[in-house]
Amino acid sequence: MTKKQLVEQAVLDKCSLYPDYVEAKLGFRNHWYPTLFSDELAEGEFKSHRILGDRLLLTRVDGKVFAVRDRCSHRGVAFSRRPECFKKGTITCWYHAFTYKLETGELCDIITNPRSNLIGRVHIPVYQVQEAKGIIFVFMGDIDPPELDDDLPPDFLDENVAIRGVRQEVASNWRIGCENGFDSTHVFIHKESILVKGNDISLPLGFVPTSKETFKIVDEETGPKGVYDLLADHCEPVFEGKVEGETVMRGHMGANRVAYDISIWLPGVLRVDPWPDPSLTQFEWYVPIDEDNHFYIQTLGRTISSPEDEDIFAKEFDEKWQPMALAGFNDDDIWAREAQQEFYKNDEAWYKEQLFEPDRNISKWRQLASRRNRGIQRYEHTL
Amino acid sequence: MTKKQLVEQAVLDKCSLYPDYVEAKLGFRNHWYPTLFSDELAEGEFKSHRILGDRLLLTRVDGKVFAVRDRCSHRGVAFSRRPECFKKGTITCWYHAFTYKLETGELCDIITNPRSNLIGRVHIPVYQVQEAKGIIFVFMGDIDPPELDDDLPPDFLDENVAIRGVRQEVASNWRIGCENGFDSTHVFIHKESILVKGNDISLPLGFVPTSKETFKIVDEETGPKGVYDLLADHCEPVFEGKVEGETVMRGHMGANRVAYDISIWLPGVLRVDPWPDPSLTQFEWYVPIDEDNHFYIQTLGRTISSPEDEDIFAKEFDEKWQPMALAGFNDDDIWAREAQQEFYKNDEAWYKEQLFEPDRNISKWRQLASRRNRGIQRYEHTL
Amino acid sequence: MTKKQLVEQAVLDKCSLYPDYVEAKLGFRNHWYPTLFSDELAEGEFKSHRILGDRLLLTRVDGKVFAVRDRCSHRGVAFSRRPECFKKGTITCWYHAFTYKLETGELCDIITNPRSNLIGRVHIPVYQVQEAKGIIFVFMGDIDPPELDDDLPPDFLDENVAIRGVRQEVASNWRIGCENGFDSTHVFIHKESILVKGNDISLPLGFVPTSKETFKIVDEETGPKGVYDLLADHCEPVFEGKVEGETVMRGHMGANRVAYDISIWLPGVLRVDPWPDPSLTQFEWYVPIDEDNHFYIQTLGRTISSPEDEDIFAKEFDEKWQPMALAGFNDDDIWAREAQQEFYKNDEAWYKEQLFEPDRNISKWRQLASRRNRGIQRYEHTL
Repeated sequence: MTKKQLVEQAVLDKCSLYPDYVEAKLGFRNHWYPTLFSDELAEGEFKSHRILGDRLLLTRVDGKVFAVRDRCSHRGVAFSRRPECFKKGTITCWYHAFTYKLETGELCDIITNPRSNLIGRVHIPVYQVQEAKGIIFVFMGDIDPPELDDDLPPDFLDENVAIRGVRQEVASNWRIGCENGFDSTHVFIHKESILVKGNDISLPLGFVPTSKETFKIVDEETGPKGVYDLLADHCEPVFEGKVEGETVMRGHMGANRVAYDISIWLPGVLRVDPWPDPSLTQFEWYVPIDEDNHFYIQTLGRTISSPEDEDIFAKEFDEKWQPMALAGFNDDDIWAREAQQEFYKNDEAWYKEQLFEPDRNISKWRQLASRRNRGIQRYEHTL
Repeated sequence: MTKKQLVEQAVLDKCSLYPDYVEAKLGFRNHWYPTLFSDELAEGEFKSHRILGDRLLLTRVDGKVFAVRDRCSHRGVAFSRRPECFKKGTITCWYHAFTYKLETGELCDIITNPRSNLIGRVHIPVYQVQEAKGIIFVFMGDIDPPELDDDLPPDFLDENVAIRGVRQEVASNWRIGCENGFDSTHVFIHKESILVKGNDISLPLGFVPTSKETFKIVDEETGPKGVYDLLADHCEPVFEGKVEGETVMRGHMGANRVAYDISIWLPGVLRVDPWPDPSLTQFEWYVPIDEDNHFYIQTLGRTISSPEDEDIFAKEFDEKWQPMALAGFNDDDIWAREAQQEFYKNDEAWYKEQLFEPDRNISKWRQLASRRNRGIQRYEHTL
Repeated sequence: MTKKQLVEQAVLDKCSLYPDYVEAKLGFRNHWYPTLFSDELAEGEFKSHRILGDRLLLTRVDGKVFAVRDRCSHRGVAFSRRPECFKKGTITCWYHAFTYKLETGELCDIITNPRSNLIGRVHIPVYQVQEAKGIIFVFMGDIDPPELDDDLPPDFLDENVAIRGVRQEVASNWRIGCENGFDSTHVFIHKESILVKGNDISLPLGFVPTSKETFKIVDEETGPKGVYDLLADHCEPVFEGKVEGETVMRGHMGANRVAYDISIWLPGVLRVDPWPDPSLTQFEWYVPIDEDNHFYIQTLGRTISSPEDEDIFAKEFDEKWQPMALAGFNDDDIWAREAQQEFYKNDEAWYKEQLFEPDRNISKWRQLASRRNRGIQRYEHTL
């Protein structure tokens, strides 16, 4: 075997622990993913949205959101280059006026040749849509969609929980996003965070696991599949950083204990509770755009009991939590993920990486994801 | 078979109708192509010009144009980086002074080693050139060139026809250019055109073919090969655009009937007569630059009977037809071609596309081009 | 065989004369290469440096320079994104605080998990370093390094020789750099040089070899391996440039004879003596960055006998030789190399090129380099 073949074989061997995960560069198929926030899509507006390597056209008709593939069946152009809608509930291609029903994807008219045999016989792909908590979720797959709830972390849909959030593009594969989020020991990069110091949060430099059972896997027949990080309860936190026996730094022993309940869920969404404040929970998604980019969708949830509560939360989100936590704190994470992409864009990375004990939880996530995903998204699915 | 192999097989099956056309990403070999306009190349000037993936060096000596490959045989550099000419009719490479005769491509001298054995034994490729109607045509091939006329649409070389034109780069494969031009139902994109409204041109929204014989193929032993679009005579024009039975728009029923005689010719040149005015004919080329770009060379021809006529035409071209028709109208076509490139840059597009009845003429063009081209330009030809 | 396979076979046949050289896109392994100048790296400073496709992290501790691979073994990120050093002689990864000894590459601590089993068991690659003549040399390889002297041209390390120099990136493969430098007949590109005219240097237009033995190969068991160009002694210089029998230009017959002693040495360093002045010698390296770029490191050496001499040289270098010779003259060479890259980036170039008699010396260099290199750098070495 050549050196190249030896490497390939080694990647296969090592990755046989989580084969689907390693293959899923474009994400997992047949899952619900968040796309736009509801207030990003006005009545009658059309927006193109790239996700899992595919291109969606999203629009809203009488309040209901529809999603079709953003590509005409005739000559392959994107509707969104110049969206034309001459009758509510339809989209007409700007090129030859192929016109489709948004609900079914059926080619219902061709204005340039109204007697064409293709009419009624051709369809473009349509995607199931659900709006919840101010987010437009799309089912990226071919099977009968499961409940939206099955692809969400616990509590997200709770009636009394209000959700606010932001979305941005990050130049790394989506799996790097997941692992950065679920990785406990990456706290080290946040050691100088203003959020931590300003809010007197307790943040160690790291964690020494005191047991091998630092995780809990949720893998029932029905409902969401995920992994809880139990490291906080089975570790000695590290507040004294040493190099060659000499203490070189200290963690921040603050009064507020947060983020003791961290879990990650298929198809790639993290729950951190409470965070960044005892009254809040962070839910965040890493949604594949293509092999090298993902949408980072950060949301905060708070249990409210009245419309006034919700207004207070909205104001607080905009003025405090968005700038201080979602931007101020998590920008470090974005930076860290983008720094990993050069290495992980090569398949060899999955073999060459050298995980350590606290990464056991990440391995469990990779294994669960490999075992319970509903399919691997492939380039062929986007043609 | 894997999914990928199935797709490849399907492409092959479908494309067996016009195999050469699908392969000819870089265009057809052994044909005449327009390059620069005559007034773009002054006496003694050197210009580099990329065409069919190859690089030409064009120059003019005593009024006559010469074309050689823009690459020294010695170390592969482009002469055009710093063209050096020390004796009329020769080109000297700036690097080691290899000097070639422009007429034959023969290495006639090496200034840095005047007794080299290579002298007289090495040649660079030369390309046949003809100037006609103010355009420099180059024969891109290895065989004895046929008459220039064989690669031109009817009437272009007529003695009384004056020609004016412009050239620009378009970011799409050349075949998309051909098909956009020859495609009748793409009139839909021009429905808001100022040219149409301002000149009271009759422009329907589309065409319902009333026969399968909407084309005429010109495929004689000698002379140009092309396809005429006879759809205008075998259709019901669509002036009422309907979606789900409801009229949503109307075409422009103007007094002036134009563009009723449309044809496309090997190696990729369109003739539209009359257009954009009853006194004019448009001839336009889609010349491959590389796999992803083509030169769009638009010309207008008018029959004139005196030098004064020609001056009037020149003035009218610059002030009216160039801005209003060639730019104002055809810019929409450039936009449409570039919108198609993302899809058609993948070979699967030729299989995934879903042509409809009026596209029959495009299929006929693909078949004719596959049957009567004089060769496929390949990457190897450019080495 | 297809045309493509025929070309590939032909490349193999022709390149069987110097197979390693054709393969060594990323340079030769197990050799000493110059990196930064000593004054570019202050005490405690960290710098990332790309070389032979690999990434080094260079730093200086108590005056001594250390080099490790700029990539953490854990998750593959570059230390240099945010170099963290909490104890002299170590580097800590900013992500999870994996901490390595610079001297051995040993993982000596993990601040985030100080009891990890990985500690003491994992190493990152370290690279041997030597500083000489104000340059930091690094040994890029796996074997016990030979003497630095074995990879340097004669005289460079001589006690009385002072060295000054500059470094810049050039957008061509490193082999093009070597061959441009060692190529006698490329003097043609310098025919208008201000340096030549201003210093009354004798510079012909080219050389007619009068013997086949225009080279001397140095290929002893020990010591540096190189090729001397003896063309100056076995040629008729060309001062009269002719095209088709007519004299079209003349070389510059100046009073100062320089550059009569030119040689090239593994792993890719040129010596030109004297140059650009009878009191100076130019030593210049072409160090691979990646397949398409190299560092061009130009130095001048002068024999000095006192610290005052050295100060005078330093001032003269900055005010005269750097702007007039290293920049003014050799910028033409940079331009020429970049002009070659398009052709030579394809493997076919090694077969399609058409060398002439004076290039015999270049062939000898290719053969020596193929025979005496200590290994070929490959992509796998950089993983």
